[in-house]
Amino acid sequence: MTGYTQISYDVQGPVALVTLDRPEKMNAFTRTMMAEIIDAMDAADGDDRVRAVIFTGSGDRAFCAGADLTPEGGGHVFSDPNPVEDLSDERVRDGGGRLTLRLFNAKKPLISACNGVAVGVGATMQLPMDMRLCADTARFGFVFARRGITPEAASSWFLPRLVGMQTALEWCMTGRIFDAGEALAKGLVRSIHPQQDLLGAALGLAHEIAENTSAVSVAMTRAMLWRLSAAEHPMVAHRVDSRAIYRLSRGADAREGVASFLEKRPPNYPDTVSAEMPDFYPWWDEPGYE
Amino acid sequence: MTGYTQISYDVQGPVALVTLDRPEKMNAFTRTMMAEIIDAMDAADGDDRVRAVIFTGSGDRAFCAGADLTPEGGGHVFSDPNPVEDLSDERVRDGGGRLTLRLFNAKKPLISACNGVAVGVGATMQLPMDMRLCADTARFGFVFARRGITPEAASSWFLPRLVGMQTALEWCMTGRIFDAGEALAKGLVRSIHPQQDLLGAALGLAHEIAENTSAVSVAMTRAMLWRLSAAEHPMVAHRVDSRAIYRLSRGADAREGVASFLEKRPPNYPDTVSAEMPDFYPWWDEPGYE
Amino acid sequence: MTGYTQISYDVQGPVALVTLDRPEKMNAFTRTMMAEIIDAMDAADGDDRVRAVIFTGSGDRAFCAGADLTPEGGGHVFSDPNPVEDLSDERVRDGGGRLTLRLFNAKKPLISACNGVAVGVGATMQLPMDMRLCADTARFGFVFARRGITPEAASSWFLPRLVGMQTALEWCMTGRIFDAGEALAKGLVRSIHPQQDLLGAALGLAHEIAENTSAVSVAMTRAMLWRLSAAEHPMVAHRVDSRAIYRLSRGADAREGVASFLEKRPPNYPDTVSAEMPDFYPWWDEPGYE
Repeated sequence: MTGYTQISYDVQGPVALVTLDRPEKMNAFTRTMMAEIIDAMDAADGDDRVRAVIFTGSGDRAFCAGADLTPEGGGHVFSDPNPVEDLSDERVRDGGGRLTLRLFNAKKPLISACNGVAVGVGATMQLPMDMRLCADTARFGFVFARRGITPEAASSWFLPRLVGMQTALEWCMTGRIFDAGEALAKGLVRSIHPQQDLLGAALGLAHEIAENTSAVSVAMTRAMLWRLSAAEHPMVAHRVDSRAIYRLSRGADAREGVASFLEKRPPNYPDTVSAEMPDFYPWWDEPGYE
Repeated sequence: MTGYTQISYDVQGPVALVTLDRPEKMNAFTRTMMAEIIDAMDAADGDDRVRAVIFTGSGDRAFCAGADLTPEGGGHVFSDPNPVEDLSDERVRDGGGRLTLRLFNAKKPLISACNGVAVGVGATMQLPMDMRLCADTARFGFVFARRGITPEAASSWFLPRLVGMQTALEWCMTGRIFDAGEALAKGLVRSIHPQQDLLGAALGLAHEIAENTSAVSVAMTRAMLWRLSAAEHPMVAHRVDSRAIYRLSRGADAREGVASFLEKRPPNYPDTVSAEMPDFYPWWDEPGYE
Repeated sequence: MTGYTQISYDVQGPVALVTLDRPEKMNAFTRTMMAEIIDAMDAADGDDRVRAVIFTGSGDRAFCAGADLTPEGGGHVFSDPNPVEDLSDERVRDGGGRLTLRLFNAKKPLISACNGVAVGVGATMQLPMDMRLCADTARFGFVFARRGITPEAASSWFLPRLVGMQTALEWCMTGRIFDAGEALAKGLVRSIHPQQDLLGAALGLAHEIAENTSAVSVAMTRAMLWRLSAAEHPMVAHRVDSRAIYRLSRGADAREGVASFLEKRPPNYPDTVSAEMPDFYPWWDEPGYE
């Protein structure tokens, strides 16, 4: 896919910047935007130069004001004239969830630079990202119960992992809008920044990762933490991390990691995610929609 | 069941108030109280006027001082002269767990207004509630290890979801009593109030939900967050929320939700939990005791 | 095993103190140290006098500076000349994970007194402990991605349970060193102490448990919280805690617990972990490496 129409995608050094780019619509989410973000995620995962991906919104008002409910939003399911009866049909699948499940499988660190309003899918699409920074003007809302629908984008799985059950329940049951301070206090975001400093702070975090860590290590770390933390027993993690340590400790990145540490110099890791992920990766069978 | 003897049940507008009502016994828990709360929960779930349930204790000393260990506590298992040998027998089932599993399946938001001492089952029965408010005089204790028994009421599942493993372990391993400030700092309660303002604050939260949200949306949200957050993979959540969005977005509440939002007026949702839960609800097979 | 060479093990009243004892190497972790800690854990679990185990490091610089990568570290896998091809081979198993899985199954409360630097396995070995106290000079680092390897010791399972996903991801993806203040703010440790007061504070917590609680209750509580919190449904917890309450409430410790409470005197529990764990313990099949 080339020629994005609702996002922009820009690689600057080791960072890919994905900008939701419908500022006149407060970057409202459409099926087109979903497809473009997924395509950009594929590009970032496939580009070994990219060590982290930052997501932000165009303009100074909104990160994303939720699903675009207007006709130009592009065939939104609400107005589907021929509804599907079989709920296991692929056409039933929620677009927000298609996106968040793709982000869940990312090989690069995902950083949100939430520059303003983030409600509905504008909030839930940030949950599978790894670190969330926001502007002091940001506002969030899991507003679904105020629209007669429910949390989507697999947020019932993601949100309690970030903020615990009590906060997740209150935010989703009241559907109220809350500010950056509450988002920080409850653990939804890891830091708040003046709007003009937000992107710089996100870039700083991305560069900290890029300059100090192995890309293969970080891709493995990402898959391991998100997946193994949900297992019923730590033995499931032990099986995977034993394999990971066994394979990676014999690799070029481990040699460079130890050597650069002992020599007190910046590392220069040779291995790439496209070529040197360990042979047992992926170790899981990805479940499908059914 | 009518004529409760150990609780009171009162519906005021959209709120059902369940009051543990043995103030001379610090509202100590009995098998009778368990059965009455479960019956009241059934009434609240079956009454479409009720949009939220608040639980509190009678008097200004205690929410519930734990299990009533005296003979008038009513056939407590401790004194059972003919113990059951088969531990999968229904008679072995813990009464606190019978209650919390019923609360786990509630269709209405559950709000605790913890007005004083809450120890043992007085603390654990609050864990499956959605939001916990407490008086500044409240004190809590997971005191089981100080009585020669163990945490009950499925609290080993609920408590770490609210406060994380380290705090849950310390509270249960020491069995010590702690105050409202610690409960707030660790995330057990979401707010502290002067005792005379506690019920008003709980009512305010209940009304915020009742006046702004769809009852069907909230019932679905409740089941989704409690159940899907415990799944091993976010795909499990995606399967359910795709179905939920697909069905509900074509319903009357979604039309009203969007219309009232665009018209900037209070919503008036027509759908009811008794008649309009989506066709795939419940989507799970409820596990039994075994 | 007697004559530990890299740790010391000392029982003082109801507390076993395990000290990592290679101060000239900042207590760096070796296979020998792993085997000695596991042996000490077996001793502590088998000694009914021991009511809690405290782990600390020798000297005032480090708790444990990570894996000893030098040849004297003792056959470290990095330098294995004949690598195993079958990744399910026991020889592939990570040593840190062997240790943390043993700690996971401990019957006694585990308390970390982290007296200084704790990086790599020095940090991850503390995660399956129940309560972590640290010196104000402590520093932590999940540095694996800076060495070209990945988190180990089943930390992808343990760490998010303590600090949530966002913090766990940031710490493991950046691999940066952080101080005691950040460890406290994020919930990794439960308290910070001046270094000269650290061991006293840990002893105070151990004695609080020893003087007030039943050893059988605490051993059961430990297994229940760590294991049942990871179940998919609270019914799994209800099945176990119903059995636990049913059996323990008829035991000598419950009689003593209630009697001492009613008589307002310190308890003197007769039951021991070696002889009086309930008949259905352990209730699980322990998974193996595969």
